[in-house]
Amino acid sequence: MSVSILMGSASDLTKMEGAVTALKEFEVPYEIAVMSAHRTPDVVQAHVKTAPERGIRVFICGAGMAAHLAGAVSAHTHLPVIGVPLSGSALGGMDALYATVQMPKGVPVATVAIDGAYNAGVLAVQMLATADAGLAEKLVQYKKSMQDAIAAANQKLREQI
Amino acid sequence: MSVSILMGSASDLTKMEGAVTALKEFEVPYEIAVMSAHRTPDVVQAHVKTAPERGIRVFICGAGMAAHLAGAVSAHTHLPVIGVPLSGSALGGMDALYATVQMPKGVPVATVAIDGAYNAGVLAVQMLATADAGLAEKLVQYKKSMQDAIAAANQKLREQI
Amino acid sequence: MSVSILMGSASDLTKMEGAVTALKEFEVPYEIAVMSAHRTPDVVQAHVKTAPERGIRVFICGAGMAAHLAGAVSAHTHLPVIGVPLSGSALGGMDALYATVQMPKGVPVATVAIDGAYNAGVLAVQMLATADAGLAEKLVQYKKSMQDAIAAANQKLREQI
Amino acid sequence: MSVSILMGSASDLTKMEGAVTALKEFEVPYEIAVMSAHRTPDVVQAHVKTAPERGIRVFICGAGMAAHLAGAVSAHTHLPVIGVPLSGSALGGMDALYATVQMPKGVPVATVAIDGAYNAGVLAVQMLATADAGLAEKLVQYKKSMQDAIAAANQKLREQI
Amino acid sequence: MSVSILMGSASDLTKMEGAVTALKEFEVPYEIAVMSAHRTPDVVQAHVKTAPERGIRVFICGAGMAAHLAGAVSAHTHLPVIGVPLSGSALGGMDALYATVQMPKGVPVATVAIDGAYNAGVLAVQMLATADAGLAEKLVQYKKSMQDAIAAANQKLREQI
Amino acid sequence: MSVSILMGSASDLTKMEGAVTALKEFEVPYEIAVMSAHRTPDVVQAHVKTAPERGIRVFICGAGMAAHLAGAVSAHTHLPVIGVPLSGSALGGMDALYATVQMPKGVPVATVAIDGAYNAGVLAVQMLATADAGLAEKLVQYKKSMQDAIAAANQKLREQI
Amino acid sequence: MSVSILMGSASDLTKMEGAVTALKEFEVPYEIAVMSAHRTPDVVQAHVKTAPERGIRVFICGAGMAAHLAGAVSAHTHLPVIGVPLSGSALGGMDALYATVQMPKGVPVATVAIDGAYNAGVLAVQMLATADAGLAEKLVQYKKSMQDAIAAANQKLREQI
Amino acid sequence: MSVSILMGSASDLTKMEGAVTALKEFEVPYEIAVMSAHRTPDVVQAHVKTAPERGIRVFICGAGMAAHLAGAVSAHTHLPVIGVPLSGSALGGMDALYATVQMPKGVPVATVAIDGAYNAGVLAVQMLATADAGLAEKLVQYKKSMQDAIAAANQKLREQI
Repeated sequence: MSVSILMGSASDLTKMEGAVTALKEFEVPYEIAVMSAHRTPDVVQAHVKTAPERGIRVFICGAGMAAHLAGAVSAHTHLPVIGVPLSGSALGGMDALYATVQMPKGVPVATVAIDGAYNAGVLAVQMLATADAGLAEKLVQYKKSMQDAIAAANQKLREQI
Repeated sequence: MSVSILMGSASDLTKMEGAVTALKEFEVPYEIAVMSAHRTPDVVQAHVKTAPERGIRVFICGAGMAAHLAGAVSAHTHLPVIGVPLSGSALGGMDALYATVQMPKGVPVATVAIDGAYNAGVLAVQMLATADAGLAEKLVQYKKSMQDAIAAANQKLREQI
Repeated sequence: MSVSILMGSASDLTKMEGAVTALKEFEVPYEIAVMSAHRTPDVVQAHVKTAPERGIRVFICGAGMAAHLAGAVSAHTHLPVIGVPLSGSALGGMDALYATVQMPKGVPVATVAIDGAYNAGVLAVQMLATADAGLAEKLVQYKKSMQDAIAAANQKLREQI
Repeated sequence: MSVSILMGSASDLTKMEGAVTALKEFEVPYEIAVMSAHRTPDVVQAHVKTAPERGIRVFICGAGMAAHLAGAVSAHTHLPVIGVPLSGSALGGMDALYATVQMPKGVPVATVAIDGAYNAGVLAVQMLATADAGLAEKLVQYKKSMQDAIAAANQKLREQI
Repeated sequence: MSVSILMGSASDLTKMEGAVTALKEFEVPYEIAVMSAHRTPDVVQAHVKTAPERGIRVFICGAGMAAHLAGAVSAHTHLPVIGVPLSGSALGGMDALYATVQMPKGVPVATVAIDGAYNAGVLAVQMLATADAGLAEKLVQYKKSMQDAIAAANQKLREQI
Repeated sequence: MSVSILMGSASDLTKMEGAVTALKEFEVPYEIAVMSAHRTPDVVQAHVKTAPERGIRVFICGAGMAAHLAGAVSAHTHLPVIGVPLSGSALGGMDALYATVQMPKGVPVATVAIDGAYNAGVLAVQMLATADAGLAEKLVQYKKSMQDAIAAANQKLREQI
Repeated sequence: MSVSILMGSASDLTKMEGAVTALKEFEVPYEIAVMSAHRTPDVVQAHVKTAPERGIRVFICGAGMAAHLAGAVSAHTHLPVIGVPLSGSALGGMDALYATVQMPKGVPVATVAIDGAYNAGVLAVQMLATADAGLAEKLVQYKKSMQDAIAAANQKLREQI
Repeated sequence: MSVSILMGSASDLTKMEGAVTALKEFEVPYEIAVMSAHRTPDVVQAHVKTAPERGIRVFICGAGMAAHLAGAVSAHTHLPVIGVPLSGSALGGMDALYATVQMPKGVPVATVAIDGAYNAGVLAVQMLATADAGLAEKLVQYKKSMQDAIAAANQKLREQI
């Protein structure tokens, strides 16, 4: 397993599925678990500290509100940590965005868009691909497929008008 | 010692001095330390778990930006935790406010105003006073002294005009 | 009765029920009433000033918009006051959050998350538990139950995949 | 005295002087006092309830942060209350604006711009002028003087270029 | 007619009905019209300049987005103008609030809460009541009725528990 | 004269000088005047309605706070109106931005960045250049000069390291 | 074709239809295409650079979230670019507004309201009309039709009451 | 060279120096250049497309306002791109944050805190270290040095009291 997908609450699963989708598309093995920076700090610590033994090289952490999970994971590891701020609170995810991205000096979190779990998966692949030519080639193909999709959308648009 | 004052960075000391001032006014013994939820998570854990042995009954935690310290402390204790969001970032403390107050179910942080360290001290005294008649009486006197200060301000204002 | 739950409007009852739930879980006796800082200031004053006679040691106040109830209660008592900013306005509760948390020097309000009534109840229990070993033990058990719930969620997640 | 100018703290005097300036320009008699919705609620109540006896017909209330003064005054009177949200906090007065303007049904506060004390004075004059032809005529002249000032600014601008 | 209720678009009528309701409760005569600061500036000018002839003494103006109607009316009259920022835009009425309340020196708008049309009506009554003892007495009774409503809500709440 | 630069207050001149600079660079003739949507609505109306006679084809309007000038101008003309939201208020220009850009259907304002007066000048040139080949060629050269400036900055940066 | 309507994603079509509607009303020929600043930067570049050959004189670009399309188009052309920030993200379009309007010196984007595609069309017509008397006359008639629509709304309102 | 540090304007150099500092601490070779997504899009494209030939494996892009640089770079490469939103605008960097982090599906930007250039450097090191055991070891030591610094700060704090 190369990527560890963590989320703060079982109810976040729907919003985090995009990360799974992305990793499956690139055939990158992953683990997935629910753990909370606030309710199970010891589980987080143990899970993160033993991650290298399981082959983990990148973390993806999704959480809402005062979203501390990504920061708490980053505190316990030198591996890169991707944070996904989740919406759902009264503040529409702005709280989660600030709590995820505004990290202090020395402990970064690579933050993606609010509810951007899919992009978190792509970013994890990009990180791994810096030392994996096969994965890099898949990313090049992926960019082409996005271009093809837009070309197809344009074709359809021209036919509609 | 009854109250533990923690801050995320040594540079926060100036902004947190209000808590010390308030506790001194009410003659409540306190400890004070710098520790970071992100840079020294193990220190936070050890310090919080051993706090009851030192007599600690309330925590006051000040931090800025993605201010996780109060939440991290609350994760490790059943004692009440007061959070002081600190300004100083590009977002003027709004990031610290959201990261401190928007805690998930089961792990509250008693949040005061941005840079409200003095009030954090008063709130800690109020909590301790729920079971301490002497401290409660001091709070009653304190409320009177605030009223006297405003009466004096009015007297001065009338003389100015 | 140990805790007084107040709300600014009868329509806030649904959003404040979490506080009742939490206090019931910890078997802490409470009173509950509707009163408005703006529509019934005299009722608020009378109710707060007589609260110690009824055994009240902590207040929980929920209000929306220009949410002054917690501040108005804090003005009349030296007991700790927990404020619950309620959403429901066009500003999504950001107005209530600012109006609750940004209290001036000397009159703190222990603010929890927007719509965080349940956590307000837990925080009230934490305050009372600073001088009640039985209640403190219940909080320790409560933390364990949260950990068990997350362990169960993980078990279920593993079975799903 | 027709207008009562109140402010939450003696330190607000500089920001509230605009209200005095405006009332003096229109020769409207006023009183001015410091009193806090949170530190001296009983003084506020007494001062507001006896205001009609002093001839007061409009209130102007300036406060910062969780600016409850205007709302607290409005709670105790049927007279119109003008609220001036004051800047100075970490949130730049946005907190004071929301806490002043977002009043619940039945208890309005006529809110002006952040730090808009001068306009609060003009608005008070406009209210009194609804039943005072002499004051109304002064307002008509005032509008003309603003137009003259801009015409003069344009004249000066043309000479500069 | 004493009060002129204006709104920027026919679609604002539902949100502005609260002003009508309040004025009817106090038996204050009113006129109501749709006119836009941006689409019909000449109509606004004519309607406002002739308002005194129709007996108008207070304006209530509701508008959304870049809500200029209240400001445009205030530009053409010395009568007090109450602004009601309306929600409905992508920014949830925050745009309308800022565009209504942040008026420049000399041209105030008495701003109420977002969608606070009912309170705009009450505020208009309060302004007129400064020189109308009968109306003032109605406001005193109105305050009592709000207190009775809350007492009734409490009675019902006690029966529920 | 092709472009009319208007500003709401003489104190805005410093912030609006960028528009003059840009128009001078492109040798586009302009007029400049101070006039307020709120203090001199009749002057605005007259100035805008007579603009075509003076050859005006584009307006640039700068204003702060509840920045209505651009909208008020757009209400009186079918010519394109560029709005420059100005900072300087307690809300840092966010109020001016919303009040300028969030225009209702049928009355657009072409809004540039907060304090973006220079870009307003460039945008006016771009509009005029849609039917002026000489001006279009100047814009092409201008784009090249920006690229040269950045190339020079890079050259300097390489020498520094 | 005079106007090029571009949007970042096929799913933006519904929100951008207003631009088509406006251009049809004024009988201004247009092209429409989907292309993404992030997914198809080369397509954007080619499409923009060849636009003059197709007769394009104004661009209208709609995008949501980190809405870079209008800026990317403006980077490749000296023609005026109108940006339409689209809502739909967790931040309600505030992200798209800031990403569209806050352009750096030298590369303006004429930004309209969030989801203001119709007004983008009108603004494009206003730009073209600066050198097209027939189009200008249509805009004059259009302004009259808006006034008639409001007069009709008032007539209907008077009949309702 | 492994890391490419890009910034939108020469004036951003001071704010981006933190990235250089971090990379030097970890002895990671880097290149640095000024280029603008809006003023020199072709330079960006060429520089990014040839980056792999220069050995670049990670990009760090700093920009302010409508900060498109990181997104524009990500559009042209499959390598991971770290975005540093820079403050300095009237909106305090909130505009740059939203424009950097809210990227659409398929084109992620790893966003760090506003003005968080140093952390961008650390994050780049973390990414490279996923396949470089020596660099990983340096990160482990780095975490220890942060802990030592805080321990020293505490020691100093204890001596002060």
